[in-house]
Amino acid sequence: MEGVLSGKRLALARLISLIENEDPSTFAALSKLYKHTGTAHIVGITGPPGSGKSTIVTKLTSEYRSRGKTVGIIAVDPSSPFTGGALLGDRIRMQEHALDKDVYVRSMGTRGHLGGIARATSDTIRVIDAFGKDVIIVETVGAGQSEVEIVEVAQTVIVTDVPGSGDDIQAIKAGIMEIADIFVVNKKDLPGADIKVNAIKAMLELDTRNTGWTPPVMLTSARNGEGISELADKIEEHLRYLKECGLMEKRSLARSKDELESIMEYKLTRELLAQLQGRPEYKKAIERIAQKDEDPYSVAERLIVKFLSSYKEECE
Amino acid sequence: MEGVLSGKRLALARLISLIENEDPSTFAALSKLYKHTGTAHIVGITGPPGSGKSTIVTKLTSEYRSRGKTVGIIAVDPSSPFTGGALLGDRIRMQEHALDKDVYVRSMGTRGHLGGIARATSDTIRVIDAFGKDVIIVETVGAGQSEVEIVEVAQTVIVTDVPGSGDDIQAIKAGIMEIADIFVVNKKDLPGADIKVNAIKAMLELDTRNTGWTPPVMLTSARNGEGISELADKIEEHLRYLKECGLMEKRSLARSKDELESIMEYKLTRELLAQLQGRPEYKKAIERIAQKDEDPYSVAERLIVKFLSSYKEECE
Repeated sequence: MEGVLSGKRLALARLISLIENEDPSTFAALSKLYKHTGTAHIVGITGPPGSGKSTIVTKLTSEYRSRGKTVGIIAVDPSSPFTGGALLGDRIRMQEHALDKDVYVRSMGTRGHLGGIARATSDTIRVIDAFGKDVIIVETVGAGQSEVEIVEVAQTVIVTDVPGSGDDIQAIKAGIMEIADIFVVNKKDLPGADIKVNAIKAMLELDTRNTGWTPPVMLTSARNGEGISELADKIEEHLRYLKECGLMEKRSLARSKDELESIMEYKLTRELLAQLQGRPEYKKAIERIAQKDEDPYSVAERLIVKFLSSYKEECE
Repeated sequence: MEGVLSGKRLALARLISLIENEDPSTFAALSKLYKHTGTAHIVGITGPPGSGKSTIVTKLTSEYRSRGKTVGIIAVDPSSPFTGGALLGDRIRMQEHALDKDVYVRSMGTRGHLGGIARATSDTIRVIDAFGKDVIIVETVGAGQSEVEIVEVAQTVIVTDVPGSGDDIQAIKAGIMEIADIFVVNKKDLPGADIKVNAIKAMLELDTRNTGWTPPVMLTSARNGEGISELADKIEEHLRYLKECGLMEKRSLARSKDELESIMEYKLTRELLAQLQGRPEYKKAIERIAQKDEDPYSVAERLIVKFLSSYKEECE
């Protein structure tokens, strides 16, 4: 924990590994680091596989570095629910900044545990924030549940797409549209870039929410670095917008509530399961459910009542 | 509940709506329906947008109907975290079977609540199972967290892809590979179908888990109905495999445990939040977290201790 605050990368890496492994000791560290957080600008980037997210992140990082800003990158890789391994490809792509000590890159894989990745990502952002990075870029693969989560942790959300990747209604899901603060149509030299931009703009016009910010649709060719500087400008413009109209504060309150509730859910469930795991009665109850002798709803109710009354017994 | 057991579609639709709205009254109904479940074969289908999942589901349904089987279809639509609306497109596509009373189709959207869709989908499968459908097909959009979930509810998982949709390492994520029991390369008349099949087979050879089942890679042209009958055969073959080698029982135990724990997590958290919501101290605690006066980990700990000791006080 002290290592993280004094800028030691090894200490940072170790703490994040503990977070990934859901080590209970991380709570104390996270608790103490919390007051050192809140200075980083958290930028989320999501979009379909093959839309060049990693290249955009790499070039955007170079742009930030040339502006004197330090960068943290979290590549969230849904990866394997069974092996838990993050895909090699993502790590290779980040090599460009491997020797720059002002860039910290971390891949995170799911461990097949629902909600685990969201919890770990959220905590890792906090830690890198406390570590002192100016901008933290969180990259996730779309499309699915993960976008819903990125909007909970990021202040500015970039949604990427490429020309021609299906301009039909299914390709651009309404939900993905709604979370975007900035759209990027990458690989702009491919045929159909204008069609894609217009399709996105047409969908944006259907959006009746009045937020004071109309998401711009940017054209980039990340591989050649084209449009990246303009993208960095837009990201900063969005941050200014958030601050000026008080949204920053509102989002911070909403995130505090989400975070508190998710930590409570996690801790309370862990406490309950710690009481149950390994007990023969628990194993038997699961068998009875599988054999349809009992239903999981009634068993859940009974076990919860028993769990809560175990606190009652203490005072008898 | 009785309506569902006596085959009333309207009762079924109403119960599923209550489940989607997280109505507390559903627990009693689900509890009673549970012993009528376990007969349906639950087939998951996932893959990238545009790979023809909905068309495959539609044609597969026709195939099952011609074999005298009744079908339930659940289209899980990550859709909008803000509006909660399921996308019109998915519903339109299912029209083909709209007049067949032995086919029940339901779209489900997320309500922006992490884990909510998984809970609701799992419960809806149970209800349609109790309703008496022989096969329940659960369709989700890939790629992301959602695949990790489909493997928890489905007995047979189909992963779809199309030729040419990026044969690079990122397009076929390792995690998606590992959950597949059957691969389908759809739109087989497009150029590159063989390359895609070979790419998938090459990745399968890297899989060192010894399961006794090597996922077949099927070629289909769902729009023309080509390969659909063979796919239905493979799905039945996989079910026989699961039964014969005892995996069915093993998976049923694992699912019972997951289901019980997720219900307990849900109920316990709801109980805690019911105590907290609306209280001025709770609102103040969230404000203090947002202002960095306190950290969420310590607050969570304090509130949980207080929650648990509220059960203790009852006996004083």
